[in-house]
Amino acid sequence: MNDADYMQLAIDLAEKGLYTASPNPRVGCIIVRNGQIIGRGYHVRTGQAHAEVNAIADAGNVEDATVYVTLEPCSHTGRTPPCSDALITANVARVVVAMADPNPLVAGSGIAKLEQAGIVVELGLLASQARQLNPGYIKRMELGLPWVRVKLAMSLDGRTAMASGESQWITGKRARSDVQQLRARSCVVMSGVNTIIADDASLTVRADELGLEAGLAKEAAEQQPVRVVLDSNLRLPTTAKILSQPGRLIIMTAVENSVAEQALVAMGAEVVHCGNKNGQVDLDNVLQFLAEMSVNEILVEAGATLSGALAEAGLVDHYTVYMAPTLLGNTARPLLQLPLATMAEQQRLQIDSIEPIGEDWRIDSRPVRK
Amino acid sequence: MNDADYMQLAIDLAEKGLYTASPNPRVGCIIVRNGQIIGRGYHVRTGQAHAEVNAIADAGNVEDATVYVTLEPCSHTGRTPPCSDALITANVARVVVAMADPNPLVAGSGIAKLEQAGIVVELGLLASQARQLNPGYIKRMELGLPWVRVKLAMSLDGRTAMASGESQWITGKRARSDVQQLRARSCVVMSGVNTIIADDASLTVRADELGLEAGLAKEAAEQQPVRVVLDSNLRLPTTAKILSQPGRLIIMTAVENSVAEQALVAMGAEVVHCGNKNGQVDLDNVLQFLAEMSVNEILVEAGATLSGALAEAGLVDHYTVYMAPTLLGNTARPLLQLPLATMAEQQRLQIDSIEPIGEDWRIDSRPVRK
Repeated sequence: MNDADYMQLAIDLAEKGLYTASPNPRVGCIIVRNGQIIGRGYHVRTGQAHAEVNAIADAGNVEDATVYVTLEPCSHTGRTPPCSDALITANVARVVVAMADPNPLVAGSGIAKLEQAGIVVELGLLASQARQLNPGYIKRMELGLPWVRVKLAMSLDGRTAMASGESQWITGKRARSDVQQLRARSCVVMSGVNTIIADDASLTVRADELGLEAGLAKEAAEQQPVRVVLDSNLRLPTTAKILSQPGRLIIMTAVENSVAEQALVAMGAEVVHCGNKNGQVDLDNVLQFLAEMSVNEILVEAGATLSGALAEAGLVDHYTVYMAPTLLGNTARPLLQLPLATMAEQQRLQIDSIEPIGEDWRIDSRPVRK
Repeated sequence: MNDADYMQLAIDLAEKGLYTASPNPRVGCIIVRNGQIIGRGYHVRTGQAHAEVNAIADAGNVEDATVYVTLEPCSHTGRTPPCSDALITANVARVVVAMADPNPLVAGSGIAKLEQAGIVVELGLLASQARQLNPGYIKRMELGLPWVRVKLAMSLDGRTAMASGESQWITGKRARSDVQQLRARSCVVMSGVNTIIADDASLTVRADELGLEAGLAKEAAEQQPVRVVLDSNLRLPTTAKILSQPGRLIIMTAVENSVAEQALVAMGAEVVHCGNKNGQVDLDNVLQFLAEMSVNEILVEAGATLSGALAEAGLVDHYTVYMAPTLLGNTARPLLQLPLATMAEQQRLQIDSIEPIGEDWRIDSRPVRK
């Protein structure tokens, strides 16, 4: 086992917090002395101990040990005391850090504190893998905006439903279970009012559909993502199933309509006014608002209109596309409402992976910014 | 090395005839005695020796040896004497055959002949891999029709070009080189007149674009596929580049227009009347005509109209789709002109593989027949 092997184990540990750590980052920590792993820890959820503290507690005595941690130890007192202090107090010899904390409250000061205390610090090991743990947290800290994943399900010819709207069973059970996992790891699941009305969708995480081990599934489902519906004209009927599900529901609107608003609020929803841009909710405002709510990852599960509008506005960070092995033909509905006239306007992507999932295929890609 | 290992080597050898064996099948042969490979052979081209004869010649004495051959040895005298006779004369002990020859002139009689001569014959080892060598030959022998591969290049959202027709550089150089290899292995490359006019396409195999070792590339390019253009109304202008390229060019038409026909014939093209079905060339007739020409594999490189018509008529055996990492948007051109109204009409596929090729991805799939 070398440094990279230990760091990989720390990354694996961090992933255990995938469904629970938000809005905090997912962090893992391994403590090693004389080639023996003596402590393991990860951050489970906000308000509870950080990964380093859990690993120290797991080890007991960590004097002269080496600590591998996926994110710079914090230096500020939040809901828990600073981890850098805990490491100094515990007398560790060396700390290997995958990446600096982009949080401006930390941003190198955790590392500086350790070094000032005479601890050897190494930064940057498996940094890009560590970044992948927390795309949402990192983007929010670096740019003040949440990270937006658009999920789409399409046929091989890029269609999502027949012209009539008929669309059931394009993708199989395994793909749908995968989408449940995407919901569970996201702070927010967002859709448009037309999709909610057409499908009477609830956007919830359902423990029995996650395809996870029972304990983890229960834990993931207990922490429901905030559901956000963009409803520019407050057309969501009070009979919509989404209004009767557990968890927080925010309806973003572009109009003043106190009757409709009060009816939705009476059903337990929150109504937020997000500005009006050509009759629609202002998408920039929506993301700004959610960042202020400490939202890291947004999962957009919407139709071609909202997904296309986000694409057109350059607000998509990641596309997760489930491609079903079928042809729906050219009169079927398009993947994205995205009117482009020339090849110069095409939106180039970087495809990170294409993997089989049941009988379907999952395609993960990112826009290439010009 | 066991029987399956030797047969795999025979299959690998057969693939050396990929670009040259047609209209004959691609066949490979390995001869083994006392655990030693003593002979190797494959079928290079029609009129030349078959794989078994080449392997016997390579070995010299093959008495008491075991022969591994990817296709049943022939029993009839075609351009060369029967291979079963050659094996009997050479006194081999055992013949392992991957698959029976679907050619009704053989169809088990080669195996019967060997068995009658006291040779042990085993049939069926790696049969499905061996079938993949010769989809065209097998379909022509079994169903009297050529095997149709439709090649398409699309964006991730299933679009082939902008509405204006602008489409250059959707896929990269590696994908285009792969298409050259598909052309080279096909007996026929087929397109529609609109595509030929719009792109001034020539549909030829170009040695320097094949991405193959120079000798093989030269050999592949020397045997140009027959080019077939469906031109229902004989609109191909005599200035089209395709008319001035080397190799055989057949123009299939649905109309009688002796002036246009004579002009095309004067340019070296053949004009064939293939019936008229709603103003278009009758596609069933086209395939029937090409089967009678001993065409095994057809590569269709056409636009949404012809590709969609073939899909709608259930005449496609295989789709090879190159997917570029880009979004062209919903006003761009569809993959297939295939109007379907209900999910019940969807054309389900079996996806065999999705592989990266340069920066693009190649998706191979087959229609699932209802």
